[in-house]
Formats: sequence, C-alpha cells, structure tokens
Amino acid sequence: MNEFQLIARYFASSPCSNDVLLGIGDDAAVIAVPSGYRLVAAVDTIVEGIHFPHHSDAADIAYRALAVNLSDMAAMGAVPRWFTLSLCIPAIDEAWMEHFASSLQALAGRFDVQLVGGDTVKGPLNISIQILGLVESDKWLTRSGASPGDLIFVSGNPGEAAGGLQLLLTPRGAGSREEQQYSQHLIQRFLRPEPRVALGRFLRLHASAAMDVSDGLLGDLRKLCASSGCGARLQLEQLPASSALQVMFDDQQREQLILSGGDDYELLFTIAPQHEAVVARAMAACDVVCTRIGVMSAGPEVSCFRDSQAVTFADAGYDHFAS
Amino acid sequence: MNEFQLIARYFASSPCSNDVLLGIGDDAAVIAVPSGYRLVAAVDTIVEGIHFPHHSDAADIAYRALAVNLSDMAAMGAVPRWFTLSLCIPAIDEAWMEHFASSLQALAGRFDVQLVGGDTVKGPLNISIQILGLVESDKWLTRSGASPGDLIFVSGNPGEAAGGLQLLLTPRGAGSREEQQYSQHLIQRFLRPEPRVALGRFLRLHASAAMDVSDGLLGDLRKLCASSGCGARLQLEQLPASSALQVMFDDQQREQLILSGGDDYELLFTIAPQHEAVVARAMAACDVVCTRIGVMSAGPEVSCFRDSQAVTFADAGYDHFAS
Repeated sequence: MNEFQLIARYFASSPCSNDVLLGIGDDAAVIAVPSGYRLVAAVDTIVEGIHFPHHSDAADIAYRALAVNLSDMAAMGAVPRWFTLSLCIPAIDEAWMEHFASSLQALAGRFDVQLVGGDTVKGPLNISIQILGLVESDKWLTRSGASPGDLIFVSGNPGEAAGGLQLLLTPRGAGSREEQQYSQHLIQRFLRPEPRVALGRFLRLHASAAMDVSDGLLGDLRKLCASSGCGARLQLEQLPASSALQVMFDDQQREQLILSGGDDYELLFTIAPQHEAVVARAMAACDVVCTRIGVMSAGPEVSCFRDSQAVTFADAGYDHFAS
Repeated sequence: MNEFQLIARYFASSPCSNDVLLGIGDDAAVIAVPSGYRLVAAVDTIVEGIHFPHHSDAADIAYRALAVNLSDMAAMGAVPRWFTLSLCIPAIDEAWMEHFASSLQALAGRFDVQLVGGDTVKGPLNISIQILGLVESDKWLTRSGASPGDLIFVSGNPGEAAGGLQLLLTPRGAGSREEQQYSQHLIQRFLRPEPRVALGRFLRLHASAAMDVSDGLLGDLRKLCASSGCGARLQLEQLPASSALQVMFDDQQREQLILSGGDDYELLFTIAPQHEAVVARAMAACDVVCTRIGVMSAGPEVSCFRDSQAVTFADAGYDHFAS
C-alpha cells in the first residue's frame, strides 16, 4: 500500500456536506463559504514525547490532535467546519491507522467537522491539523478585548489534565476505590479534553475577551492581559475546587497544577460586570461550570491574592522550549 | 525566549492585507472571503531526511515548504492568498530561525500570500504549511476532468529536480565549465522549484484536468488517469529534452529521471484538441515551456510508446513508504 492509497483508504470521508465542492483526493479541497460569515483558521500540531507520551494509544492521539484545534475555534466563538490533516508516521501499521482514523472520524462526527484534505509522510510521529471554521461577520472573540474591571472566568476544572498526566506517567499503588475512580477521571481529562465549542458560541456576543487554556491558567492569563493591554488580579481562594485534585494531590501540588498545568483546553474569558448574569445562562445552556476567579485591572501586572494577601509565584506556564 | 515570543518575533507579518481581519497572535485568524469565490485549501508537510537532505540550508527548507503548497494552488487554477505554518524544530537556533523566516517571507511576498497563523513545537524537524486560496466560483481545475482524446502536456523540464538531488547527494568531480553550470542549474531546480501559479491561472478555463508533478511524471499521470477514469498513451520521444539532463546523465538515466523523478512541481495538464492553441498563448503569457507528451485514451492503461513501439516500465513513482 502506498501513500496515495493510504490517504484514500483510511481518510476518505463519509459523504461530503454540500459546502465541500471537492474533497479528499485532488490537489486541494474546494469549499463554499456562506455569505455573512468570516473564515476562521488555526493550526495546532502535536508531537510524540512532547504533547503526548510515547506509545500512547492511537485513538487518544487522534482525539487530541483534533480536540486542540476544535478548542481554538471555541476560543473564537466560531463554528468548526472543515479540517486538513498532515500525518507524519514512522511506518505503516494498519491496525494503528484504523484505530487512529476511526477515533478521528468519531470526534469529527460529534462536532460535525469534515476532513477535506491531507497528506501522509514518513518520519517521527507528528500530527498537524489545520482547522477552518465560520463566525458571523459582526462579532468574534479575541484575546484583546478585555478592559479593567471586567470579571475573569474559567470553565471546568483547570489542572485536572496535568494531574492526569502525572498519574499516567507515574502510576500510584492501587489505593481506595475512590482514589482509583478519581485517578481514572483525571487521566481521562488529560486524554480526552472536551472542546468548549458550545460555550464559545454562547459567549460570542457577551464576553469581552476569550482564549483557551492550553499552556497553564496563569501563563495564558498573562497572554490575554498582554493582548488586552491590561493587568489582572487573580483570587487564589476562588479557583475551582476539583474533588479529584483534592483527593489525589496535596494543597500545594493542587494549586500548582491549577495555575501552571497545561492541556486543559478550558475557556478563559472576561466579561463586563453588568453582563455577569450571562455566565449563569451559559452554564445552564452548555452544561459546564464556569468559575469567577478574578478581575481585570489597569496595570500590566498579573497579581495573585489569597484572600487579601498578595502571593508571588515564579514565572509559570507551559513552554515546549523551557528546558 | 519562549514559544510565544518566538512566533511573534520571527513570524509576525508585515502589515495585514485588508482581508485579514485578525492575524497572528490570537487563537485563530479571521479572514474575509470575497463573494464570487470559492475557498481552496491544501496542506503539505516536508520532513528532514525524507523531503530534503539533513543539514539543508534553512532558507532552502523554508522555500520548499511554501513552494510545494503554492504548487497545489497552481494545480487548481487558484490564487494563493493565506497560509498557516506549523514549525517543529529540535531546538531554537536564532540564526537558523532568522534565515528560515526571511526566506519564507521573501517567497510569500513574491506570491502575495500572507502568513496568518502558526505554531512552533519542539521535535524532529518537520514543516507543515496549510495554504488557503481563492478561485472563481464558476470553474477550477481538478484531476478528474480529462476525456479520451485530450492532449497531455507538461510544463518545464520534469526530471531536473531529481537529477539535481542526485548531484547534491553525490557530488561529482569538477568537470568542464559547462558541466559545472548544468550541475548548478539542476541543483537549483531541486532546491528552488518554481510554483506554476500563473500557468494554473491561465489554464483554469481551458484545461480539462491538471495536477502538479510532485511524485514523478508517470506515477502522477496514473493518478490523473485514475481520477478521470481514462487511460493514457505517453510518447517517450516527445518528453522534454533538458540540455542539463542530456549533458549530466546518460539516456537511460535521463529517461528514468523524467518519468520517475519527484520534486519538480511542474504542471501536468490535459486539454481538448480543439483548444490546443491555448497552450502557445499560455507559454507566452507565463514564460514557461509546455510540451505535448501524449494523449488520453479510453482504456485504464497508461502505456508508454517510443515512436510506435510499446515500452514497459516497472511501476514507477515516488513513494515515501516504498522502501
């Protein structure tokens, strides 16, 4: 089986939606973009040993590769629609490919996004997905719209994915039934992050700024602040209290995971105080908890407070090149 | 310098064109697609040791990464407009990055395409570019439109890039001045393939089918035939006679390079006999030689003839996974 057949065999899509005028198998895809919408484009690549452990399950790798891209669409308030896949694999393993493709198509089906093109090359395992989505012409979310006084929220339980990764890489003894269950929960949160697309859509007209938390809450908040030309005051005692993190980690570890652990793909967003009631509606509509964790400030600093005491941390945030 | 600064420092674009409403630095780019056009999307990835030799010059790598994607737009008759870059590098080397970025921006500037997003990750050298272009809603080129009787053309001198790669990997002794010049010419043809965007645009309304020749003329012609549900009759004596290949390789090597050598990124296209005169106009308008090399047939076979003698070859065509 050669490269050409490989793409055709595993990745030829289910019947194209009407807006895909030419799909997989030509030199490029041709897509009809409806009027009244803007095209939203992002790319995210995951590499073995950096973004996921060596010998990860092919289904988990495929899920992650697409989920992190869906999360970028969520952060823009966009509807993900189409994607291309560049798959770099060391050798052809048919069972691996089937497992990968079926997981990819399952997640694609759940979010109604369509694979429209791709290439398969030989080399160290590396999966690059480019996602294309649509957003209404009048408004989309950015990192740069926050103002001093805006309230800061985060969805879900940041830190759980990084906790799960720790447990995956350094398994503990059996533990109690509760510990086993929480451990499994955290590992799933690392392996299968949930793209917050519905939440992003709900927030599109209401949030002043948004981004997804991929590199750690504190580091990503600093990026949002830099883009918005603001500072922030984070209240540590308001950080979401994950039962699983409380049971599996001590207080210091837990806070470290919440502030600096990557891979959560939750939404970090700001909202003007007069629109705070929107958040409760978003939580109900999208079935996800959102927690108010601080407030935007005028100064450039991102400060952390526990109750009213300032707390200092070493520079945090996930960085592929840090060490 | 961390990952975030890296993207901002080297790849923050020159001022955005009006159609890029949000460029590098947010979770995704936002693009205005003009009405009357279709979006054309492709991805091509190049990997060190597979698509370019180890220790290649950063400027050559950047050129190739973008050129192969521009070539996909050429094959569709589309205008390339925007691209995203996923750069996987083993470590940060500032001189390398500057060299890479400046070559990428130079080619992007020449074709008026704009970098709108990207990510930089750590790992074995792998460059994935996703290109987005526009084509008029009424017509674009595909591999599947050829009919029996259509004439087959190829632009430029296929085989030269593969000849150049051979000379790059196995340098010869000094040779005559003519040999040195031809050797340099061939190596440049490998290092700096010219995307035939203008030719693709010219052919958009006239060619019945088109694709770019990346994996070898014969193998790619087979793909075009399979897509079109046709066969082809290739006349070996009509293959373009590159002086450089004639001087640097014997007849058998030369024919092998022309038929099976990859990396040329020339356009292979078919045209109905009554429209053959368009090709001379295209050559003049686009400053590229196009050579008639055969004719499409009804049967599924792709046959080669030398004058009127059938010639058989082992299955040819470049395949990353073949060995």
